[in-house]
Amino acid sequence: MAQEDIFKKLVAHCKEYGYVFQSSEIYDGLGAVYDYGQNGVELKNNIKKYWWDSMVLLHENVVGIDSAIFMHPTIWKASGHVDAFNDPLIDNKDSKKRYRADVLIEEQLAKYEEKMDKEVAKAQKRFGDAFDEKQFRETNPRVLANQEKWNALHARFSDALNASDLAELKQIIEDEGIVCPISGSRNWTDVRQFNLMFSTDMGSTADGALKIYLRPETAQGIFVNYLNVQKTGRMKLPFGIAQIGKAFRNEIVARQFIFRMREFEQMEMQFFVKPGTELDWFDKWKETRINWHRALGFGDENYRFHVHEKLAHYANAAVDVEYKFPFGFKEVEGIHSRTDFDLSQHQKYSGKKIQYFDPELGESYVPYVVETSIGVDRMFLQVVAASYCEEEVESNGKKDTRVVMKLPPVLAPVKLAVMPLVKKDGLPEKAREIIDDLKFDFNCQYDEKDSIGKRYRRQDAIGTPFCVTVDHQTLEDQTVTIRFRDTMEQERVAIAELKNMIADQVSFKKLFAKLK
Amino acid sequence: MAQEDIFKKLVAHCKEYGYVFQSSEIYDGLGAVYDYGQNGVELKNNIKKYWWDSMVLLHENVVGIDSAIFMHPTIWKASGHVDAFNDPLIDNKDSKKRYRADVLIEEQLAKYEEKMDKEVAKAQKRFGDAFDEKQFRETNPRVLANQEKWNALHARFSDALNASDLAELKQIIEDEGIVCPISGSRNWTDVRQFNLMFSTDMGSTADGALKIYLRPETAQGIFVNYLNVQKTGRMKLPFGIAQIGKAFRNEIVARQFIFRMREFEQMEMQFFVKPGTELDWFDKWKETRINWHRALGFGDENYRFHVHEKLAHYANAAVDVEYKFPFGFKEVEGIHSRTDFDLSQHQKYSGKKIQYFDPELGESYVPYVVETSIGVDRMFLQVVAASYCEEEVESNGKKDTRVVMKLPPVLAPVKLAVMPLVKKDGLPEKAREIIDDLKFDFNCQYDEKDSIGKRYRRQDAIGTPFCVTVDHQTLEDQTVTIRFRDTMEQERVAIAELKNMIADQVSFKKLFAKLK
Repeated sequence: MAQEDIFKKLVAHCKEYGYVFQSSEIYDGLGAVYDYGQNGVELKNNIKKYWWDSMVLLHENVVGIDSAIFMHPTIWKASGHVDAFNDPLIDNKDSKKRYRADVLIEEQLAKYEEKMDKEVAKAQKRFGDAFDEKQFRETNPRVLANQEKWNALHARFSDALNASDLAELKQIIEDEGIVCPISGSRNWTDVRQFNLMFSTDMGSTADGALKIYLRPETAQGIFVNYLNVQKTGRMKLPFGIAQIGKAFRNEIVARQFIFRMREFEQMEMQFFVKPGTELDWFDKWKETRINWHRALGFGDENYRFHVHEKLAHYANAAVDVEYKFPFGFKEVEGIHSRTDFDLSQHQKYSGKKIQYFDPELGESYVPYVVETSIGVDRMFLQVVAASYCEEEVESNGKKDTRVVMKLPPVLAPVKLAVMPLVKKDGLPEKAREIIDDLKFDFNCQYDEKDSIGKRYRRQDAIGTPFCVTVDHQTLEDQTVTIRFRDTMEQERVAIAELKNMIADQVSFKKLFAKLK
Repeated sequence: MAQEDIFKKLVAHCKEYGYVFQSSEIYDGLGAVYDYGQNGVELKNNIKKYWWDSMVLLHENVVGIDSAIFMHPTIWKASGHVDAFNDPLIDNKDSKKRYRADVLIEEQLAKYEEKMDKEVAKAQKRFGDAFDEKQFRETNPRVLANQEKWNALHARFSDALNASDLAELKQIIEDEGIVCPISGSRNWTDVRQFNLMFSTDMGSTADGALKIYLRPETAQGIFVNYLNVQKTGRMKLPFGIAQIGKAFRNEIVARQFIFRMREFEQMEMQFFVKPGTELDWFDKWKETRINWHRALGFGDENYRFHVHEKLAHYANAAVDVEYKFPFGFKEVEGIHSRTDFDLSQHQKYSGKKIQYFDPELGESYVPYVVETSIGVDRMFLQVVAASYCEEEVESNGKKDTRVVMKLPPVLAPVKLAVMPLVKKDGLPEKAREIIDDLKFDFNCQYDEKDSIGKRYRRQDAIGTPFCVTVDHQTLEDQTVTIRFRDTMEQERVAIAELKNMIADQVSFKKLFAKLK
């Protein structure tokens, strides 16, 4: 099946099984905003626990905080967001629709690529096994012509972006003859910068309200609390501050389900170090973080580093951890060596001394910072994309497809479904008795409707790793059938063994042990 | 010590020990917004876990969701918030300061009460034991005069509020001769309604952006997801949906630390029931919720119910759980029987059928709703206020005061501090070895600075229930000294026993068992 189709199925599956709903769906939705359903919220909470505990429990020198979404507006002046957190926008005068100028040009680049790919596909069909793609691309005149156009456009586009040259972006759009997909016209306005921060008014004094922003990142909440945490926590360098919280960006083009949303959640950790040691710590955190991802068992080959060649003004090193999504390798986490940029800016704008007194050197300095930054929602998408499977199975002699979410058991929303074989003879009561004994330890679900086979499939679709069936034999000898999601194998076990058996498989402790 | 002084000390303590910082403190703060420090975030997370698990794990028919802060604006029209979520404001023309008209009048009522109390206090001093307060209040002419003024003002004020009569509110302020505390003048503007919702603009199409609101309550996020959860979760009535999340109110008068903030967090559960059964469920949840509070062990006598006599337009029963704060009995949780108001409104405004097909009756209806609603921050304040103690102790023969946070161990941010007696002879290494063995199970802290006595006091101030000291004997026989926060008693135990000993004391499971 095409990767695109799988992605569409995944989105439908997430809705059907209570993982992700469109926000305000009964009011026809709100663009690029999503809600987490009864299973989604549990998976999300488990992902957050995995991150939080691996930061705060595992590292003696990492502590957490929870800073507010509302912050003093000068913070965003100091951080550079008020002046430079912009997208270049352009309007079509006929359709009245607004677009990101850079995205229009990227789509034009993609069109040249498509044309080349089409030529290749045609030739491949014609020549079959004898086809040499590399040679064809290097010699075919139609491919070469498109490649030349691509190269020229790409170079010009990069220059315009680097120079933040809005007039040149418009000129490119005009020169390439890019049309509005709605009106089909080339009747464009100038390109203008549009700030991505949401703003609101706080308070209401007769003098007027204070214009504040919804934070576009959680990192600044850590920087402005550096002094408070360092002093009250008596922290010594190097140390880190971790935080999980909502952030907001008024994205014009929000795409790919929960991959890019206007309201999203971040898990960020800022690690404060002695200047000069930051690149060693950068390397250390790079390894720590990719190991954290790989420990989930989705295949080491599906992760890679993408090193940033062009660095943001505040960074002296940056790398992304990328995962192979159905739509290609994409960033799931960023690790950045942010130098002393943020703390120095806050020192300048607040007038407060934001430094660390190093007892060994006997002097004070502004610490350097290494950041690890990951989106909860994007991590969620990574986990469900990696877990979603369609398998050919045989059922009562007939071929069938089962949809199964092969979630790591430790992250699964429901750990255990308990099912009475029939709705009588005291089996439901026995099933509830088992749940009552286990419900403090695991999220359990009682399920008595439909045939056992149908119930198994339903739990497969949710991703429940264990199903326990209570039958008449249970009443006699206190044993049940436990069925394993991934292998579909069944085993007869004593009820008394269930707790340890499941606890071992869903243990965060066991997962953390892999991170050492 | 006066209760007010204790409250001031508590606020200072919360800052000094990394519980609560003022938001954006280095920028001189942001009004009525606070950040949680390294210990605060852990306590807050533990409170949230206590609530969430007691709702979702303990009740088979309660599931969670996590809906976005951003919602379709029509939702707030349907819920009544756009039209009626207002405060009456008045400006003083000389000072340019803005006030809540109702608060100015409440303060005037309090002034009459103060006058009466002063007369009572004076007489009490004069007559001593022979003083009969009730008789004095019923006969003293100065008290009676003030009581009459109070009665008249209270009646007039209630009528004006019930009728939302803004002109009458202004007239009361003028008639009472209420002056601005800043300018001292009576030069007031008219009273106007001010909506408490924060708004922002989403998207940026050429047609203009969509004005949306930051949700002022999480409840509506549950109502608009009722259909999705009921269907995809195959829920049968009665069932509940629980949610934890941020909400925002542009309070003009925000007071008492984190008791009333502009950005705050709610834990709300909406329980959907068959019409006609709602008052039975209301009673059941009333009991369930007060037991949840009492199970923390802060003294049953410090909780009480406050029954609402005047009901909101959507409710047919409402009660608060109140706790005895240093500033008096105040609401920590509300339980409301909301009828079918919200679902019916959303049915009307969205045009979607929001009903439940009852298989027993063979017909569909709009469910009734019983809500339990509690503020995370207010619960946090309740827990720290109840835990903060100053105790007279003897230390090396001298009298001393120790400050100790007697947090329930299950909620404490740090469960265990491990301290080497001296910083040499392999004791620090042994201490770290103990931490490495326990850190997956509990939040541990290593502490080697200052004398053991000072370290105990520091952990008392944080609220750490257990301190373990590693000394030379430890290296010989693998035993340590464990010291208990509340009793300050010490015991020699084997290292191997620590895990079970502490686990038993900090177990959520044990706490949940009390809720049955």
